[in-house]
Amino acid sequence: MKGKFIVLEGPDRCGKSTQAKLLVNHLTSLGKDVILTREPGGTPTAEQIRKIVLQPGLDVRPMAELFLYEASRAQHTQEKILPALEAGKIVICERYTMSTAAYQGYGRGIDLDMIDTLNRIATLETKPDLTLVFLMSDKYFVKRGEYLFSDRLEQEDAAFRQKMRKGYLDLINQTPHAYLINADQTIEDIQHRVLELLKETHITD
Amino acid sequence: MKGKFIVLEGPDRCGKSTQAKLLVNHLTSLGKDVILTREPGGTPTAEQIRKIVLQPGLDVRPMAELFLYEASRAQHTQEKILPALEAGKIVICERYTMSTAAYQGYGRGIDLDMIDTLNRIATLETKPDLTLVFLMSDKYFVKRGEYLFSDRLEQEDAAFRQKMRKGYLDLINQTPHAYLINADQTIEDIQHRVLELLKETHITD
Repeated sequence: MKGKFIVLEGPDRCGKSTQAKLLVNHLTSLGKDVILTREPGGTPTAEQIRKIVLQPGLDVRPMAELFLYEASRAQHTQEKILPALEAGKIVICERYTMSTAAYQGYGRGIDLDMIDTLNRIATLETKPDLTLVFLMSDKYFVKRGEYLFSDRLEQEDAAFRQKMRKGYLDLINQTPHAYLINADQTIEDIQHRVLELLKETHITD
Repeated sequence: MKGKFIVLEGPDRCGKSTQAKLLVNHLTSLGKDVILTREPGGTPTAEQIRKIVLQPGLDVRPMAELFLYEASRAQHTQEKILPALEAGKIVICERYTMSTAAYQGYGRGIDLDMIDTLNRIATLETKPDLTLVFLMSDKYFVKRGEYLFSDRLEQEDAAFRQKMRKGYLDLINQTPHAYLINADQTIEDIQHRVLELLKETHITD
């Protein structure tokens, strides 16, 4: 692949979207060809799948949820991510395979090897060149979310969030080129750390 | 399981829906507790997935399509089929795992072992007690479909239908309790054969 694939991971409200936009602006200002995308979603078909998976009150069993995420991922990877990487672009993506392992595996208890198998099928073995994992302490999560408890997945409780947090920490250790970023910091401090990591890893040189 | 699970398989326009309704009427008239359902779909969530997968003109890659079918199946099996079987009902279902192997495997060329793995995950290893496979010759398909070429999957061409036909024949040989039914016959003759098979297999005794 001529391009680079940078994934921002972490639970809801940890600042992924904000940092993704700042990163796009930064790289664009350096003259890089960048696209910003997200999961679930990222293409018209995958956005339709997103609407199902995030619909409040809808009965979605854990295994159906997992297959929906993988359907979105397969479509998104083949229709958008791989063509952009082949064209030499930098792809910035909010959430990818690690979120599925954290939510559906550590969170909902689905077998992690099975999730890994489905992830590899859906991605056609596409791996991020850099994964930035934003984690914050629970008190920040609650503070930031006071006005925001909207979709089905955001209504999960603190115990679920703790399981996911443990999951993300395990997954960082198991994933090449994955880094933990302390999302309790200010937007500016987080961005500083992101740019520092870009520099250290030479990903976008 | 106290109930019985009867699946009607075969390509579009082979008369599955007509025979499914006739079978429900017949069993109901004998005092049996029967539900009629279908795939993709069968529950509100799965019907939403159905809308995506059958949407004309939508870009759905083969692997995304496969995952969408499995998502629908996982939801349908857990929310509707298994509870009905546990309650002792006869479940009549239009399409199930064999259709996915025929369409996505034989038709689109996705690895059959992978499809088998995903089918087993999505169904929680639920197997039909009886699978009736309706196949007709291509000239009947074209005749019946003249006014009907509507959704994305129905627009497949004759070569694709031939691959699927071969697929269904292979799958019948590999599947316990699966029977080929000649769908070139009249509605009455097909129904006669269906009821004959019910009698021979003692499925609903």
